[in-house]
This record gives sequence, C-alpha cells and structure tokens, in this order.
Amino acid sequence: MTPNMLYSTADLKNLDHKSRLKLINAVSGIKPANLIGSASKDGNTNLAIFNSVFHLGSDPALIGMIMRPVEEVPRHTYQNILETGYYTINHVHHSFIEKAHYTSAKVDAAISEFDRCGLQPEYVDGFPAPFVRESKVKMGMRFVQDLLIPQNQTRMIIGEIELLSLPEDAWIDNDIDLERTGAVGISGLNSYYQLTKIARFPYARANEIPDFANEDV
Amino acid sequence: MTPNMLYSTADLKNLDHKSRLKLINAVSGIKPANLIGSASKDGNTNLAIFNSVFHLGSDPALIGMIMRPVEEVPRHTYQNILETGYYTINHVHHSFIEKAHYTSAKVDAAISEFDRCGLQPEYVDGFPAPFVRESKVKMGMRFVQDLLIPQNQTRMIIGEIELLSLPEDAWIDNDIDLERTGAVGISGLNSYYQLTKIARFPYARANEIPDFANEDV
Repeated sequence: MTPNMLYSTADLKNLDHKSRLKLINAVSGIKPANLIGSASKDGNTNLAIFNSVFHLGSDPALIGMIMRPVEEVPRHTYQNILETGYYTINHVHHSFIEKAHYTSAKVDAAISEFDRCGLQPEYVDGFPAPFVRESKVKMGMRFVQDLLIPQNQTRMIIGEIELLSLPEDAWIDNDIDLERTGAVGISGLNSYYQLTKIARFPYARANEIPDFANEDV
Repeated sequence: MTPNMLYSTADLKNLDHKSRLKLINAVSGIKPANLIGSASKDGNTNLAIFNSVFHLGSDPALIGMIMRPVEEVPRHTYQNILETGYYTINHVHHSFIEKAHYTSAKVDAAISEFDRCGLQPEYVDGFPAPFVRESKVKMGMRFVQDLLIPQNQTRMIIGEIELLSLPEDAWIDNDIDLERTGAVGISGLNSYYQLTKIARFPYARANEIPDFANEDV
C-alpha cells in the first residue's frame, strides 16, 4: 500500500485553478469519448469532443450531456443546437483519437473542425445535422431541453434519439461490444483508454447473490 | 464493413421494453463503475453500484449522478442521501467487480449490501457516510441538490466533494492512472471492461493542430 493523498474541501479550494481542474476532472472514473456534430442555420458544420455524454432514460430514449458555462467563451455546439434543434453523437474509436482530441481547440465558427481535423461529415436519411463517417455507433438527436445547473452555471442538454446506427456485428449478447467497435474512454481531460471486456453478469436478484459473506478472505 | 442496424424513433418505440432498455443503455459508450455508500438515520448502511456518475464542475468540486424514478421501487440510497445529507462515491476495481455488481439486487433495507456482498465499510476522518475499504479512489460527498428531470421523472443528484482519497502512486502526469488503479467501466447494464491507457495529448490549441487536413488518407 502506498500512502494516500487526502483532500478536504478546504484543501481543494486552496489548490491552484489548473491543479484542481485536472484532479477533479479525473475522480469520477472513466468517461465516454463522443464527438458532437452540429451545423449553424447558415450551414457551417461544427464538431466537438465531449466526455460528458450520459444515459438518461430508455423510454423515451434520452441522452444528457454537460456544457460548460456559455458565457466563458463562444460555444458553437451550443449555439447550433439551439438554432437548429438537432445534433449528432458519434463514438470515438482508436483509429481517430488524435483527430477527435483536436476538435477541442477553439477555432473560428467559419472553420469546420471536420476539415481542420480531417474527419468526414456524413448525412444519413435526411437528418439535418452532420454525422462522423469514421464513427461506427452514431445517433441523430433532437434537442429536448436546456437545464441550467444553478450551482456553477453549467448546462445539461437533453436530447431524444431520433436515429440510431450501429454495425450488426457489434451487437453481441444483447449489448454493444465496445472492445469490438474499438470504442475509447477518457480520464481527466486528455488521457485515452482502450477497453477490454472482462466480465458479464446476469441481472442481479436478491435470491441469486453468490455467498460472498462466507467466503474465505 | 458489416451492414448497419438503423433505428428511427418509431422503431425504438416499437421495441419491447427489455430490448429497448438494453440497447439504449449501451449507446452512450463506456460508463464509470462506482459504488455509492450511504446510511439511514438509524445507522443501517447501504451500498449500490451506479454507472451514471459524472463530472459537473471543479470549483466548487461537483459530481452528478442519475437516479431512476423513485416511485418505481424503494430507493434506499436516495432516501439515505435525503435523510442524512451525505454519501460516498467509491471506484470499482477488477478485484471486486462481481461483489459490486450484486449490490444492485433489491434487498431489504435492514440488510446491508456491505455484509451481503462481502465488502467492508470504512469510516474516514469522522465523515458520516461509509466508504468502501476495498476501493482505492473514494470521495465523501455532501448532498447539494435534487433536480427532477421532467421528461422521465429521473432525478439528478448533485453533491460536493468534501473528502477525496486516492493512492499517491495512482497520480501520474497530473492525472489518475485508471489502468494502474485497476478501475473498470460498464457498458449497458452488466458488461464490465478493463482499461488500458493508450494515448495522452496536450491541451488543444488552434495554432497547434497537426496537419490532419493534408495528410494522405
């Protein structure tokens, strides 16, 4: 056992801005890597990596994501979503992590991150927002709600899945096999992880819990 | 390229409940595996696996998590958080995935999942909620807000980190090394993934984007 680093609320407040940002961004565990595709009313496309996409419900099929305070810097993704009501969520895979990462650089709204980062926009079934051709699992989202988080002025964007596309061979045992698709996770702000499937357990019922309590330790 | 499975909103609505639940729970990508520790006013401890913990902000240090509708079944974690105002978030590691998974079984409030699933409660620095001794990265959380999501009656629970503990040797290059701690991710409802660090990139600046646009494809 190595010694533990132990922080109180006061210790966290006393950290400099960057150290706290890095530390607190890492503590929640692995985060999914997704690219959000959108377009302005004028048709300028935008692509941005997000590590804050999460499941919110399956009926209706709702996905949430967290947007940093819009007052800080221009948020093209946010503006496009409000303007057009549509966006896409696209999984990031091994094969294009670096391109995906650099979509986080702040570039002028007239410059598309698709072009700048070498990823290809793709339009599916007339859906109004651009998908990422290189991505295997992708969703066309209809904007549903913009919820302000009062404690820190971040916003939770809720959308409903209107179009879902995934490769047939990724759907195994009633689950998307993220090892097979080559999906990646993010820790903190800029570390990327490969995923290897190691276990699968049945739905947990009280009368089927293994006898952990009496096992030898 | 294998053929794609393509779903519209109507296709998703027409799926049976279980199929839709499994599919939609998998589409957002990898999710972190965390155990939420709590106790009732009477001191009954509770432990429950959550795959919906996410970063909400670093100053103050806020973490969100999604709670399914509380009307459906008893939610001991939710009740304990409201009763006492405190809970803990504990990373799940390779070494105890199965025990962690079975905390999701519905057991009577008088039975502690710590006992039932063979994990040890640990009290740190007088913090009022129980931590998981087996977990290397853990946070003591003060309940801040309970936000109802109107679209589906789920709740977003927001908490502030009051205590953070992690092993010194897990803090590498200004990041928690999730490969080194043996952290795991979840896909869907019951598939577990091991994490291998494969890339780390600097903060992305517009004038430092590699020349992706002109590379040979």
